[in-house]
Amino acid sequence: MSEVAFEVRRGAYYDSVVLMQLQRALAELPLVEDAGVVMATPSNLELLQQNSLLPGQAQAGPDDLLIVVRAGSLVEAQAALGQVDALLARRRAAVDQAYRPRSLSAAVKQLPAAGWVLISVPGRYAAGVAREALDLKRHVFLYSDNVSLEDEAALKQSAREAGLLVMGPDCGTAVLNGVGFGFANRVRRGNIGLVAASGTGLQAVTTHIHRLGRGISQAIGTGGRDLKAEIGGITTLQGLDLLARDPETRVVVLISKPPDAQVTQRVLALARSCGKPVVVQFMGFAPPGSRIGNLHFAASLAQAAELAVGLAGAGSNGGARGGPDPVADGSSAAGMAPRAGSGGPPAASGASTNGRRYLRGLFAGGTLAGEALRGLQTLLGPIESNLGGSQPAGRQASPGHLLLDLGGDEFTVGRLHPMLDNDLRLRQFRQAAADPEVALILMDVVLGEGAHPDPASEWAPAISEALRQRSVEVVVLLVGTEADPQGLPQQRQRLAQAGAAVYEETEAALEHVLRSLSPELELPGAPVTLPNGVAAINVGLESFYESLLAQSAQAVQVDWRPPAGGDERMMALLERMRAKA
Amino acid sequence: MSEVAFEVRRGAYYDSVVLMQLQRALAELPLVEDAGVVMATPSNLELLQQNSLLPGQAQAGPDDLLIVVRAGSLVEAQAALGQVDALLARRRAAVDQAYRPRSLSAAVKQLPAAGWVLISVPGRYAAGVAREALDLKRHVFLYSDNVSLEDEAALKQSAREAGLLVMGPDCGTAVLNGVGFGFANRVRRGNIGLVAASGTGLQAVTTHIHRLGRGISQAIGTGGRDLKAEIGGITTLQGLDLLARDPETRVVVLISKPPDAQVTQRVLALARSCGKPVVVQFMGFAPPGSRIGNLHFAASLAQAAELAVGLAGAGSNGGARGGPDPVADGSSAAGMAPRAGSGGPPAASGASTNGRRYLRGLFAGGTLAGEALRGLQTLLGPIESNLGGSQPAGRQASPGHLLLDLGGDEFTVGRLHPMLDNDLRLRQFRQAAADPEVALILMDVVLGEGAHPDPASEWAPAISEALRQRSVEVVVLLVGTEADPQGLPQQRQRLAQAGAAVYEETEAALEHVLRSLSPELELPGAPVTLPNGVAAINVGLESFYESLLAQSAQAVQVDWRPPAGGDERMMALLERMRAKA
Repeated sequence: MSEVAFEVRRGAYYDSVVLMQLQRALAELPLVEDAGVVMATPSNLELLQQNSLLPGQAQAGPDDLLIVVRAGSLVEAQAALGQVDALLARRRAAVDQAYRPRSLSAAVKQLPAAGWVLISVPGRYAAGVAREALDLKRHVFLYSDNVSLEDEAALKQSAREAGLLVMGPDCGTAVLNGVGFGFANRVRRGNIGLVAASGTGLQAVTTHIHRLGRGISQAIGTGGRDLKAEIGGITTLQGLDLLARDPETRVVVLISKPPDAQVTQRVLALARSCGKPVVVQFMGFAPPGSRIGNLHFAASLAQAAELAVGLAGAGSNGGARGGPDPVADGSSAAGMAPRAGSGGPPAASGASTNGRRYLRGLFAGGTLAGEALRGLQTLLGPIESNLGGSQPAGRQASPGHLLLDLGGDEFTVGRLHPMLDNDLRLRQFRQAAADPEVALILMDVVLGEGAHPDPASEWAPAISEALRQRSVEVVVLLVGTEADPQGLPQQRQRLAQAGAAVYEETEAALEHVLRSLSPELELPGAPVTLPNGVAAINVGLESFYESLLAQSAQAVQVDWRPPAGGDERMMALLERMRAKA
Repeated sequence: MSEVAFEVRRGAYYDSVVLMQLQRALAELPLVEDAGVVMATPSNLELLQQNSLLPGQAQAGPDDLLIVVRAGSLVEAQAALGQVDALLARRRAAVDQAYRPRSLSAAVKQLPAAGWVLISVPGRYAAGVAREALDLKRHVFLYSDNVSLEDEAALKQSAREAGLLVMGPDCGTAVLNGVGFGFANRVRRGNIGLVAASGTGLQAVTTHIHRLGRGISQAIGTGGRDLKAEIGGITTLQGLDLLARDPETRVVVLISKPPDAQVTQRVLALARSCGKPVVVQFMGFAPPGSRIGNLHFAASLAQAAELAVGLAGAGSNGGARGGPDPVADGSSAAGMAPRAGSGGPPAASGASTNGRRYLRGLFAGGTLAGEALRGLQTLLGPIESNLGGSQPAGRQASPGHLLLDLGGDEFTVGRLHPMLDNDLRLRQFRQAAADPEVALILMDVVLGEGAHPDPASEWAPAISEALRQRSVEVVVLLVGTEADPQGLPQQRQRLAQAGAAVYEETEAALEHVLRSLSPELELPGAPVTLPNGVAAINVGLESFYESLLAQSAQAVQVDWRPPAGGDERMMALLERMRAKA
């Protein structure tokens, strides 16, 4: 029968490397079967149990260190436990050789060129160290996890004001000026820039780009929660702005888990106006399309890399379908902000671009309506529709965007489908055209067998009349072939002559709508400038320091200890004293 | 002041064309300002109100016809109403010229070759007509909407037993043997086949394929609700099976709104085993990847067409990454069913393919874990994970698939990240390898700066040991470059020599997992055979009949009247008498 002995050390701090090495050393002692050295969180206690290492009577909480040894007898297990302090001392002796600054401010004096502070101390101390780094006007790479969302928001807000980046918390990786931070693969330098709320996502994409023969300009990690509503994508927006201004970057790749809807809208609005092709891979997110203007939506990490490589090599800026202006150069003091979200050339028939006027979508085809609705909602914000959510069929005037599928069941009881009979849609069209709040009417015209024999004969006069009365735009999505009975070229010509902007693909029509209706986007805070080269201060895992040196970066390791030796009550007292000072 | 006069006709049947023409004729009468002729549904009453046509005191329900005229005075409006019967009679005289069968059975005698019945009568009569057509052993194209989900399920179930298709209800379009049904564009014939639960979606994709210079073999509409749980994708599965057996079809395109999760799994399992590249565009659906085996996921209708055209021209069957067997030819009596869902070559290390053994995913990278989880859940069904839903961290044995992100916050309190320290993951790996319910272990190994200096040195022995003890598969997703300190080729070689299947892209690894773990798929019912050529019977909208003739198809128009002249009580009585007979 095996027996388990244990010891609890309350509130004492050891870094994770020390704990790992202690566990290994204990497990390797003669007569010991297995050992566990963990912080006593519920999850860790479960893992101990799975390994037959959970002592029945241990009273330990998440802030306590629990050391457990399993051996053939209790005496043997306890003997092993008796060696813990000797094993810890052996480790310490091996490490404490060279002189190392004990504080961040001392480290900054030792390496004044340091533009970055890498932080990988345990989560509960990490926000404090990051605050110190920001006070010293350094960018922060915050590897630590288990940092609260409130701390993350506060840190990022102050960083934004100061034109500094907080990459993280829980930021595993970055590649800055060719040097990998944290976990990072060695990849070629090149013209593809990344902003990623995803550590191994960034690694998978950069390695695949490398495998395909291209390279990376800058790869900026943001931490996995940056695109949550509480954070608002602060670091992502800063990173996008930075890459838009970076002359080395030709294509931008954006990676995240599915972001908050409003944050998505904001991030994609900035991406739309950045003047470079942007590949978007929001995992688990239904994309608004495959390509809308300069935005290219990928369905996997591998595809994100493949699209980026294709765009980086094509020699074009990717904005061929009427994309936005070339990006502002780095000399602009305010970076990309403020900038009209439309970004593109003024809309053909002069609709307002002040974002205060609305869309009316009047569709005959349900799927076309659905594709337009999904695409526009992602990029433009909420749209009322009978295709989902509310049923605003009877609305005469809406205070916002409205898109109707007039072929929906509720409209076709005893009535011909709107592809056959234009009457209902013409009535809705005239009302929308007369509504001073409506800036743009988006509609489909579907040709073919079974459909109305000459839709343009009814729509062209209605469109001409609408444009004569008011400055409204009419965008038509025309579906058909030249072999259709109505004749695609004839219908297209007649609708265009009436003043409609005619497209044959949903995404091209949506790009037109977005150019006209996107609200202006303003980026608060100061623009970020990356330091030249890489000089950095590392607080926490030594392997990150060693990796910086191995990559020929300048680096200083701080011999960090938690405030008050990790004693929680003392820390709280110190914090209060500091706040008063 | 304008005045409104109205008339209600209860339970009388007129087809939609008659109603449209009556409304136009009334509106064109001298002194009339506007007119409305509608079934008095709530939605239609709202539309009347928008056009100042809603009479205050009308008592009319959804089955009643409401005729409204607005004129300068009540007398003038009433005078116009007085002409309704004369206007209706004028219309009837213009139509009733040629001899037309009054019933479906008479029409079938007139055109015995008719393989199809097109039905576009009002929704409440449509299921009855469709049942009659199925009894006569004809395929059904059911344009009518407002048919209940229960009727749809019952119709499709009986059709499936008889090897017949019910395309619809609310099926707007199809292209069969080069002839467009309902609303359909004239497009080139070719080698791309479609199955679409989406009318204008099918039209947009077929026209874009035509525009890109390629053509259509068969385009099968299913009705918009076919992939709902209540219907189970019956017509979609039949259509896929049919296109898989069709020698003219080289590439298949599947279009739908986001389907029910279980239906998605079933449909994609059949698609995976069909031996041809399948382009999938499920709108508003987060795709499980960009390409998994022979499945290619599109993010828009336009992209679906573009992918299909690329695959149709490539001269390959698209299954290059280890795709399934060539499709069975049409001579197989049971069509594609039953067929092992795996479809591919037997898995390298001989795991069971009986679908009764499970996956363990043990990841160090959260994003890689997330990408694998999403992809596999879509195609394989529910997977427990700490990345969403339940938190099964402490589970030792699971009755199903389990995938863990061991880099998650709950695992890293006081512990090094699993990219640095393999201890926790090695323990989990050994447990999984010893679990007789586990057929396959999927894991990542991430190289690079900051990561473990030689992960293969710890993993290769563990993998060898696991494979020596049991028939379990180990699939490794390896992320790194040849420039990484650990050396990608060296790590790959060592892991592969230990017996792991090593991939460098998530989707390739997922394809391996699916080949090993996909359950067998059985298609109930009889396989569908399409008739040669097109001969059809049309019940409802005459324009569909005319369009068939214009396309040189053989067609008969039924001079259809609702049972009992549309009287609901009489219809119910007749139905009961019929059920007894």
